Amino acid sequence: MTNTQVSLVQIDNYGPWTVTPEPRREADLQTMQSRLYADISQFVGNRGGYVFFTRFDNMIAVTNGLTLEDHELLQESVGNRYPVTLSLGVATGTSPVQALSDATTLVQNAGSAQDDSRRECLEGRTVDEPHRTDDDVQIAHFDVIDATGQYTDELNAFDSFIHIEQGYAELMRHMRHAHDSLSFFVGGDNVIVVCPDLEAADYEEAIRHVEDAVDVELQVGVGRGSNAHDAGFDAKHALETCRADGTRVELEW
Amino acid sequence: MTNTQVSLVQIDNYGPWTVTPEPRREADLQTMQSRLYADISQFVGNRGGYVFFTRFDNMIAVTNGLTLEDHELLQESVGNRYPVTLSLGVATGTSPVQALSDATTLVQNAGSAQDDSRRECLEGRTVDEPHRTDDDVQIAHFDVIDATGQYTDELNAFDSFIHIEQGYAELMRHMRHAHDSLSFFVGGDNVIVVCPDLEAADYEEAIRHVEDAVDVELQVGVGRGSNAHDAGFDAKHALETCRADGTRVELEW
Amino acid sequence: MTNTQVSLVQIDNYGPWTVTPEPRREADLQTMQSRLYADISQFVGNRGGYVFFTRFDNMIAVTNGLTLEDHELLQESVGNRYPVTLSLGVATGTSPVQALSDATTLVQNAGSAQDDSRRECLEGRTVDEPHRTDDDVQIAHFDVIDATGQYTDELNAFDSFIHIEQGYAELMRHMRHAHDSLSFFVGGDNVIVVCPDLEAADYEEAIRHVEDAVDVELQVGVGRGSNAHDAGFDAKHALETCRADGTRVELEW
Amino acid sequence: MTNTQVSLVQIDNYGPWTVTPEPRREADLQTMQSRLYADISQFVGNRGGYVFFTRFDNMIAVTNGLTLEDHELLQESVGNRYPVTLSLGVATGTSPVQALSDATTLVQNAGSAQDDSRRECLEGRTVDEPHRTDDDVQIAHFDVIDATGQYTDELNAFDSFIHIEQGYAELMRHMRHAHDSLSFFVGGDNVIVVCPDLEAADYEEAIRHVEDAVDVELQVGVGRGSNAHDAGFDAKHALETCRADGTRVELEW
Repeated sequence: MTNTQVSLVQIDNYGPWTVTPEPRREADLQTMQSRLYADISQFVGNRGGYVFFTRFDNMIAVTNGLTLEDHELLQESVGNRYPVTLSLGVATGTSPVQALSDATTLVQNAGSAQDDSRRECLEGRTVDEPHRTDDDVQIAHFDVIDATGQYTDELNAFDSFIHIEQGYAELMRHMRHAHDSLSFFVGGDNVIVVCPDLEAADYEEAIRHVEDAVDVELQVGVGRGSNAHDAGFDAKHALETCRADGTRVELEW
Repeated sequence: MTNTQVSLVQIDNYGPWTVTPEPRREADLQTMQSRLYADISQFVGNRGGYVFFTRFDNMIAVTNGLTLEDHELLQESVGNRYPVTLSLGVATGTSPVQALSDATTLVQNAGSAQDDSRRECLEGRTVDEPHRTDDDVQIAHFDVIDATGQYTDELNAFDSFIHIEQGYAELMRHMRHAHDSLSFFVGGDNVIVVCPDLEAADYEEAIRHVEDAVDVELQVGVGRGSNAHDAGFDAKHALETCRADGTRVELEW
Repeated sequence: MTNTQVSLVQIDNYGPWTVTPEPRREADLQTMQSRLYADISQFVGNRGGYVFFTRFDNMIAVTNGLTLEDHELLQESVGNRYPVTLSLGVATGTSPVQALSDATTLVQNAGSAQDDSRRECLEGRTVDEPHRTDDDVQIAHFDVIDATGQYTDELNAFDSFIHIEQGYAELMRHMRHAHDSLSFFVGGDNVIVVCPDLEAADYEEAIRHVEDAVDVELQVGVGRGSNAHDAGFDAKHALETCRADGTRVELEW
Repeated sequence: MTNTQVSLVQIDNYGPWTVTPEPRREADLQTMQSRLYADISQFVGNRGGYVFFTRFDNMIAVTNGLTLEDHELLQESVGNRYPVTLSLGVATGTSPVQALSDATTLVQNAGSAQDDSRRECLEGRTVDEPHRTDDDVQIAHFDVIDATGQYTDELNAFDSFIHIEQGYAELMRHMRHAHDSLSFFVGGDNVIVVCPDLEAADYEEAIRHVEDAVDVELQVGVGRGSNAHDAGFDAKHALETCRADGTRVELEW
């Protein structure tokens, strides 16, 4: 049974900071946001987790394997190296959406995202080491079938992008409402979804739904593990099986 | 009259590289993609341009003010510091979508995105210095009205994200098909759109369309300039006027 | 009694890479070297270690607290994100110089630094968790007394730099030959030294030696811990005591 | 005749910042310093200049080709993305040491390096475009003959480092006092020196001096150009000639 540990990473007071005393150069904001995300990806990723850039001022991570001390160290390190600080909420549960919701509430209770005095809050709880199992995390890695042949080498780059965005927008809503799952576009034509205990039929149905709704053809590899990296790496291998065998859904167990 | 110079930045052979000899750690791919984008944002941004992360393996930039030699230097610098290389196509035109389309064709003609032998192509043309004017670029900076109060401080972080994504997906399609414009989510609740010569009525209509379609309320500041930074900075100031005065559409000229 | 775990980090085949097929832009080499070092500093530092940039193609780290699996992960992550790869040797001992020497031998035995076929070697052993103690690492943090008043605000920036370099060169040789210690300039007017079990008299003597030899006045804070961060953080606090009280040598235990 | 444009880059109030409110993690300081340097290396390097990390809180750059507006943009960009700010002084002259000295004085006159109220000063003058010539910059690129065979593959990594540091310390003092030149260790076994109009005999003498004083054998390639990159790239090619032909001094003109 899944027991997903989800952390919400929120930059403190970011909206006001970006325009105080004057609006800042957009290219510099993009650079800083991306490098901050990249650093968090290394920190979380090196401990077996995944973090998704999401909205950049709010990032969602699957942090099974990271302790609260780890979260505190991440906060401290960012505070030493960036002109902004982070607040973090951590929660766990069978349902990824519920865990994310609980994590969000922890941060919201500490104060508004634009509350000048709310800085570096850290609240929540992690999955205790003795309670961790190989089923805690289920990751599904979707991609568009032959995106290069269908889109990238054929359409203009923005129309390719529109197709992939429409596919992502449809999948993200469906997986959240039908399956309590959190879906993230990760570049190229790839979407990684954090799921509870779903089965092949659920993935087949999701793929059909997206194809019917927006005419984007997806395939998916699914993996499980005690942390996001293990589950996700299995999912990547399962996806390679889809590519090799021409199948639409492959579960790595 | 707008004369947008658009550059398509495409990583060579990226799909195969990410899985050869084995799939690579997802957190490392995310880190590398984000830092590559951040570097390009500095290079392009320091010369008055804007680059958008788009799909990360394909990035779209507004490069009025950058010469072909600048593009070549960017390619060389990335090739010296990353395990991947870039191909670039550059085109210009009244319509941003048309310019992007021409830029894409230049790269596609050089070879497939997954063609092992296509490396570091550079094709295209820039706007000559004597022909540059203060109208060349029109940038519109949209954001969601009171996103913090409506979403960030109220909903769980993924539902906030879904709302913003739906708004973005709707705006991007409408602006592309109705107005030949290229729209990019840039973090938070912000979308930057690269437009041809549009007027207040066009922006009012776009805002109404998105509100009717997905119930997301947008406001927009619009600026013009000889390059993306100048146009975009004026747009940011116009957006501050919306925030201060409670208006929905502000043009900075 | 100290039991320093030292890791040698060596870039594979770097000399030839920098000039193949043609010499590469110096500014790009500097950027890549510095960012690679910064990443290793985060990885090692987040686990309680210290890494020093040393020669950039060869970096020395104090890695008490890092396992061989940690070293392997670092190698893998760098290989995924940089155009170069790393070989690592790890050794332990009472004498930091001896441990570093053993670590070097492990890498040298695997192959030359410019051996095209030597890639990503990892050899050595770490201090087992049950055998770790709070005395394993001794760190001394030296700085120049009132460098800002004596040099930075008075001399031209290169002459300030020459004074500090001469002080460092003298201290590094003395600490290595008289005390089996490894000394590293870390910016500003600061030198961090990795020591075996030294006493106040040893540090007083070192300070006198440098003052007599090159007329540079140092003060030092010394700390001990089970890892470099703990020892070094105590050393920083001891150094603050020197600054506050005007003393030359302070031991934090 | 050389006309070197030298910029001093000094972090504002850095010493106090590193210990306020408490000392900061050393690994984080190292990461931030290195990444700041790397960014400045990209900015300056992309415009044909060279910047050297020097003391990290004080960096020296050869900036022929950069305008004062370029310097201002660098300041603004760093201020948007780092928790520190920069002050800059720019000066020109036949003698690199004199230019650096004048640049330093400009910053010192604006206020102490630890003056809380001195932030983001920018003073000085650049070489006007019409006055630039292909002789403005002379760069000498020294390295140790067969460092890999003599040191890296033979001695422990710290003793290799000591030899190279001793060679550097001797060369830097000699070149500054005898030849008004600024010398910088740039990694590996390489030292880059910014010179006035020197001749082959001056370099032969410098090499002999270092060999006699500390028994380190150097070779050198020298180049000239209108900016540091052009001069330095020629110097790299000249050094390749030394390596290929076994000569000690090669001038690329």
